[in-house]
Amino acid sequence: MSRQRMVPVLAVFAALAISFSYAGPSKAEPLTVLKQGSFAAGGSISTSPGDFVNNAPTARGQSLHGDHLYASYQVPADPRRLPIVMLHGAFVSGRSWETTPDGREGFQTIFLRRHFSTYIVDQPRRGRAGNSSVAMTIEPVPNDQLFFDQFRLGVWPQFFEGVQFDHSPEALNQFFRSFTPNTGPYDAKVISSAMTALLEKTGPAILFTHSQGGEPGWLTAIESPNVKAIVAFEPGSGFVFPQTDLPAEMPSAAGTLKPVPVSDTDFAKLTRIPIVIYYGDNIPTEPTPERGKDNWRVRLAMAKLWVAAVNRHGGDARLVHLPDIGIHGNTHFIMSDLNNLQVADQISQYLSEKKLD
Amino acid sequence: MSRQRMVPVLAVFAALAISFSYAGPSKAEPLTVLKQGSFAAGGSISTSPGDFVNNAPTARGQSLHGDHLYASYQVPADPRRLPIVMLHGAFVSGRSWETTPDGREGFQTIFLRRHFSTYIVDQPRRGRAGNSSVAMTIEPVPNDQLFFDQFRLGVWPQFFEGVQFDHSPEALNQFFRSFTPNTGPYDAKVISSAMTALLEKTGPAILFTHSQGGEPGWLTAIESPNVKAIVAFEPGSGFVFPQTDLPAEMPSAAGTLKPVPVSDTDFAKLTRIPIVIYYGDNIPTEPTPERGKDNWRVRLAMAKLWVAAVNRHGGDARLVHLPDIGIHGNTHFIMSDLNNLQVADQISQYLSEKKLD
Repeated sequence: MSRQRMVPVLAVFAALAISFSYAGPSKAEPLTVLKQGSFAAGGSISTSPGDFVNNAPTARGQSLHGDHLYASYQVPADPRRLPIVMLHGAFVSGRSWETTPDGREGFQTIFLRRHFSTYIVDQPRRGRAGNSSVAMTIEPVPNDQLFFDQFRLGVWPQFFEGVQFDHSPEALNQFFRSFTPNTGPYDAKVISSAMTALLEKTGPAILFTHSQGGEPGWLTAIESPNVKAIVAFEPGSGFVFPQTDLPAEMPSAAGTLKPVPVSDTDFAKLTRIPIVIYYGDNIPTEPTPERGKDNWRVRLAMAKLWVAAVNRHGGDARLVHLPDIGIHGNTHFIMSDLNNLQVADQISQYLSEKKLD
Repeated sequence: MSRQRMVPVLAVFAALAISFSYAGPSKAEPLTVLKQGSFAAGGSISTSPGDFVNNAPTARGQSLHGDHLYASYQVPADPRRLPIVMLHGAFVSGRSWETTPDGREGFQTIFLRRHFSTYIVDQPRRGRAGNSSVAMTIEPVPNDQLFFDQFRLGVWPQFFEGVQFDHSPEALNQFFRSFTPNTGPYDAKVISSAMTALLEKTGPAILFTHSQGGEPGWLTAIESPNVKAIVAFEPGSGFVFPQTDLPAEMPSAAGTLKPVPVSDTDFAKLTRIPIVIYYGDNIPTEPTPERGKDNWRVRLAMAKLWVAAVNRHGGDARLVHLPDIGIHGNTHFIMSDLNNLQVADQISQYLSEKKLD
């Protein structure tokens, strides 16, 4: 457990004003892109009964295409066999895989440079895939400080010492502006259905998931034989277990984490593909009233049980707690942290080891 | 006015099943991208009074970052001096500049190939820029058939003969799934404020707008000296005129179009930059009860008055009604129509003529 000497945010704001250009000259190599674009996958069509009256339109006789996902893709020069599909987590969109809050390349571009085709998803009822078949009221709920804690940047208003997050005001501004709300009620099955449709188009692929995306990630791997591996960053919920192997619920200062029972047949599908899970730093091992951190205590603990269960049933799952391998300071947003290149190297090594590249 | 012999949609669906691959080999040249990424621009911060209690969080003492836009950018090899910023219209997102409904390259990639840096925007309260400072209820309103008519694909269920839109079921499916709702009330000034902030980051730029994006487009050019030209595709509203030069309102089968008065000083700013407006086909010149088409009759008429007013006040505005120059069949979505390369060539010629490239 890293020592958490608090660093006052305001002093750091004053001291570290980092400017960055958005389209200035890049020191990095040019990218070669063979093909790029975007499309919708999956979804449903709801149709109202009656006849459509062109010159006096009402809902009658009209349809709504909704609950699909949006995917934007790029194919690099000399693409590897398996593309990477990236599914974001709660409160965010595909943006979370793009430029980091402090202006560096995100996993979208990093893995494209490593010759993986990439598909960046906005899940159904989020971002550019906003058409939902179910209504939703969006309230302007102020949550920045809760997110700061929950995503383990620190304990507001102080960053954790050594945290892998830029302390400039603009980085925090960009981070807070990367959030975007649900446009319909969250439904992991709606998401996995659309993801399965996407995997039909992409063919066999490696699936990256973040946070809340973990649950539809497992469900998609159960539904679609095209998921050839999962790399899950801090999965937050939906740890599925066979009914007969269900661990106890885990209470925490942020609520109770419950395992999700699935059939033995479904669980078995998760034993057929390599799976790696990454967790970052500042996650307590003992219960603490500090809500933002305690939330992750139980998730890390449940994930360890989950990995053990998968392996017990003949699978190939691995959990990497980054501080244990000498990589310190990571927040919940491992993929966009300051050391995201070092993390990407870990992933590249893993994919190579599992012959997925 | 092109002759509109109706072609039944169902027969065409059966006859023309076009399949397309999403990431298969491309016949087009590889792209070289020097730099790419995304970021938020503009927006506001709302803060709730009181103290934030980390371990029992409520709205008290918390902030919300909202009303910013999302922009994703790419810089090509050998970029031209002025980038192109693309602002979408009603009901859609930046997606509308990306892959066409039938799977071809959109303006994002076409102009990148022509060595323009591109910035693709999701406006505040839309798509990935969904955090709004004002609440919104999103209802699942079935509108596909209204959109088919309003966007001049035809008169549901029949496409216009010769329409520049692919008749396959999948093209229509992709088109309908490109829509995404407002996540907060529409506000042209909120959009132009964020666009002005974006133009601060991009520096001098050419602004492309589509449809409803026309209005914030004019407002942004009034607010920001960094708008060096506007290319407006079928602007739908917000035709601004000097108070002293206001034309009459124009009733139509789709409602009354009203001009928007602005100060002489503000209007004068629109006389300092080259502006070109494009309209497509199947727009009637005489009133018709056919709502989808009549909507555009008054908009085309108002746009002509607007261009004349701009020029009367010393400006450089041009209106191009594509059928008048031999380009037929275009829908409201000119930039993603079947002939979008031919349209792009028109634009490239214009930009060259005005020394904007």
